[in-house]
Amino acid sequence: MENKLDILFLHAIVITMRGNGVGIIEDGAVGVKGTRITFVGSSEEASGYVAERLIDAANHKVIMPGLIDAHIHSGDGLIRGTAQDLNHWMQHGIWPFEQALRQDEDAVIKGSLMNIMEALKAGTTTFCDFDTPMTKIVENHVKLGTRARVTELISELPKENKTAIGELYEFDPAEGNAKFERCKKLFDRWHGQENGRITCMFGPQGADMLSKELLLEIKSAADHRKTGIHMHVSQGDREIDQMIKRYGMRTIPFLEEVGYLDEQLMAVHLTEATEEETRFLAGRGAGMVLCSGSIAIIDGIVPPAAAFLEVSGRLALGSDQAPGNNCNNMFNEMKFTAILNKCKFGNPSIFPAWKVLRMATIEAARAIGLGEETGSIEVGKKADIIMVDFTQPCLAPIIHYPVRNIVPNLVYSAKGSEVEMVLVDGKVLIDGFKVVSVDEGKVVRDAQEAAFRVAKAAEGPFSRIPDTPLREMMENGEL
Amino acid sequence: MENKLDILFLHAIVITMRGNGVGIIEDGAVGVKGTRITFVGSSEEASGYVAERLIDAANHKVIMPGLIDAHIHSGDGLIRGTAQDLNHWMQHGIWPFEQALRQDEDAVIKGSLMNIMEALKAGTTTFCDFDTPMTKIVENHVKLGTRARVTELISELPKENKTAIGELYEFDPAEGNAKFERCKKLFDRWHGQENGRITCMFGPQGADMLSKELLLEIKSAADHRKTGIHMHVSQGDREIDQMIKRYGMRTIPFLEEVGYLDEQLMAVHLTEATEEETRFLAGRGAGMVLCSGSIAIIDGIVPPAAAFLEVSGRLALGSDQAPGNNCNNMFNEMKFTAILNKCKFGNPSIFPAWKVLRMATIEAARAIGLGEETGSIEVGKKADIIMVDFTQPCLAPIIHYPVRNIVPNLVYSAKGSEVEMVLVDGKVLIDGFKVVSVDEGKVVRDAQEAAFRVAKAAEGPFSRIPDTPLREMMENGEL
Repeated sequence: MENKLDILFLHAIVITMRGNGVGIIEDGAVGVKGTRITFVGSSEEASGYVAERLIDAANHKVIMPGLIDAHIHSGDGLIRGTAQDLNHWMQHGIWPFEQALRQDEDAVIKGSLMNIMEALKAGTTTFCDFDTPMTKIVENHVKLGTRARVTELISELPKENKTAIGELYEFDPAEGNAKFERCKKLFDRWHGQENGRITCMFGPQGADMLSKELLLEIKSAADHRKTGIHMHVSQGDREIDQMIKRYGMRTIPFLEEVGYLDEQLMAVHLTEATEEETRFLAGRGAGMVLCSGSIAIIDGIVPPAAAFLEVSGRLALGSDQAPGNNCNNMFNEMKFTAILNKCKFGNPSIFPAWKVLRMATIEAARAIGLGEETGSIEVGKKADIIMVDFTQPCLAPIIHYPVRNIVPNLVYSAKGSEVEMVLVDGKVLIDGFKVVSVDEGKVVRDAQEAAFRVAKAAEGPFSRIPDTPLREMMENGEL
Repeated sequence: MENKLDILFLHAIVITMRGNGVGIIEDGAVGVKGTRITFVGSSEEASGYVAERLIDAANHKVIMPGLIDAHIHSGDGLIRGTAQDLNHWMQHGIWPFEQALRQDEDAVIKGSLMNIMEALKAGTTTFCDFDTPMTKIVENHVKLGTRARVTELISELPKENKTAIGELYEFDPAEGNAKFERCKKLFDRWHGQENGRITCMFGPQGADMLSKELLLEIKSAADHRKTGIHMHVSQGDREIDQMIKRYGMRTIPFLEEVGYLDEQLMAVHLTEATEEETRFLAGRGAGMVLCSGSIAIIDGIVPPAAAFLEVSGRLALGSDQAPGNNCNNMFNEMKFTAILNKCKFGNPSIFPAWKVLRMATIEAARAIGLGEETGSIEVGKKADIIMVDFTQPCLAPIIHYPVRNIVPNLVYSAKGSEVEMVLVDGKVLIDGFKVVSVDEGKVVRDAQEAAFRVAKAAEGPFSRIPDTPLREMMENGEL
């Protein structure tokens, strides 16, 4: 029977993200059959449908596309909050914990599961997870039911990096090749699996971290497999310094030379890209991903999203990693992106709520190469849908006219904890604010147990950092 | 029996805020008897106590002082989100809604109740509520059980303000006197009521909004009653322009001339104060209140909290009003204050988590004149306590050593929805994440009903704004 649905949302405020704005339908209805959206319209138009499960949104709940986190290192989830408020986050903070963590694969996996669950509960349905060992981490996405576009990190840096600050990195081609092989294996095993929910990209860690030869091999492998490349680009002055020392040119001109600048590329961070470089990159059709929360906390820098908006419609946001950003929550990213840009440019109108909502939904889907599948509420798209409870006191009241307050409140007031229901690929993953597929308490307890183990293992490396302010902060009772 | 307590928290991570840092006790205990904290120590030291209610925090929950919102206009809660992303928030956005709202006292009261409830659920226990009609709004604080230091706004602006932008405001002394009388009545009726939970201050709206004569009368009335003055100071270029036109001097020198700069003053915003003026004000012992979220959204300006830190230990944060900031949540204010300052000064270490936590607790208490009563977990202080659930996936895992991650995660990852329990004056107001004293759903439904009425009434005034971008945004489907 054609008008029999699996799930029908009725009397919802539907933020479709169709068209050029947000495409709101008041008193709207959305129908799901199997993995796809099969009806979008008014509640009245839906009167001919019946459904296995009928959800009455009572005109006080918002139905919208699931949010897209275009850049997350979920494997770092376990060491959240261990390296904050430092001028040298990497050297003075995260390094001992990262070392201890990465020698404990079980801890990486358990932290990743908790991290993905955190994001899912806050409405993230699609993850571009950029980490290692991705062949194991990907199983967390399978278990939780999330949509994932995963990448195994490829670099040629040796296991023990002994390069002093300012010196050119040494490369270890054997290490680089092993990682490249793992990336290809990941692709062969997982690309298109789980009804297409899992897809794989290729992931050179940064133009400074592997040789030109390996970069070319990766490009060719990605071309051959018709998939994308997920890569940090112009992510810091350290990277630019390496590129100039090694090749006599900055990252983006170099990437042009090696043929990387095209629609296949998803370029992350771009904090050190000049305006001209950004324009050039965008002009080649590359997707751009900004991590506002993470870069603001770690570096005190505002990625100039407002400037990027002018040059591209393939813009996305990423939450990066928990020990930098502390949280992996796309509501947080939307809010910070809009507000930091208002302050950077001293202009409260430069980054309105609707634009940043597009960057977390429809434009993100395009930026990561899934624009046909997800990012909006449209017939034929995958049913990646969230329901947000606008009866919670931080989102109420709803006003429709003469000014509708729903999208501003979604961006500037929602915290993520108002996400009542999440569907991915038509399957209910969060129901009544609770995760369906795993025992939330157990996931957290398992991660906690592993974290104590990792913290113990980090003591030695931490004691060998000569001059971290964290030691003084601990002694002074500031932590 | 002396060792019989009403409530005893055991096995908690206690963030006492004693001393100069955050004063953490691992495996700590906090005892409450009547309205006060009567025990603080280790769980072991608490073994001799019995309690009516024993709460086992299982080493995964944080007990800390309730947060202090030093500047909120709760009466604006009903029109949340109606005026975002504008260069002229007041003239192009909020004005029609404010007009409609302020003609509907019932709507003001209902919006305020929801607004205070929103903040309470996110761990705010003390409110400096600056609004009108405060004689009615104060009853919301009585009903919910919150600690409130309330102020009736006093200005001499006429009811219908017809001054063009740039012209000197006209004053209506009769209007000013009526408000001053209301403020005195509020004081006489409410100061010290509810076992001292309700106290009253005097509230000149801004140095530009009332005459020198009335300012002097207010100062004398506050002196006589030994209470504080809550006042917007140097809040915008419009204010400075008025001051120069009327008196030939900027706000802070003017306030010095009229004898306002002393410990009695709680100066809010200071966004237009020069560094020298700020130093001068701080040197006189005035408390300073910054509203980071609100000012960033409305003006794209970062109040330079890091600069203020250097000159005063009487600093507090405020959430301001819902139609500017969208949310009234001190976790949001802590996070934005720290991160916006990192970006303003391009320095990730300039504003560490522990400093901003002090600004929302112990320093805030001092800034608002309640330093002896609240703001820390110490024997003898009022039991204004919150319990935060660190088993939620955005706050886990807990790491104690070699680097403790609790305070960074509290500031950079907590959203407020992790607040499981709230006590004010020893009374449990939130229990198991739920409000005890009112029916949450009904509070929201009542506010929603009033909001539809106010929105209807705003249609006329909205239609008469000639050039608001909100109209175009509505037409373009961006709202």
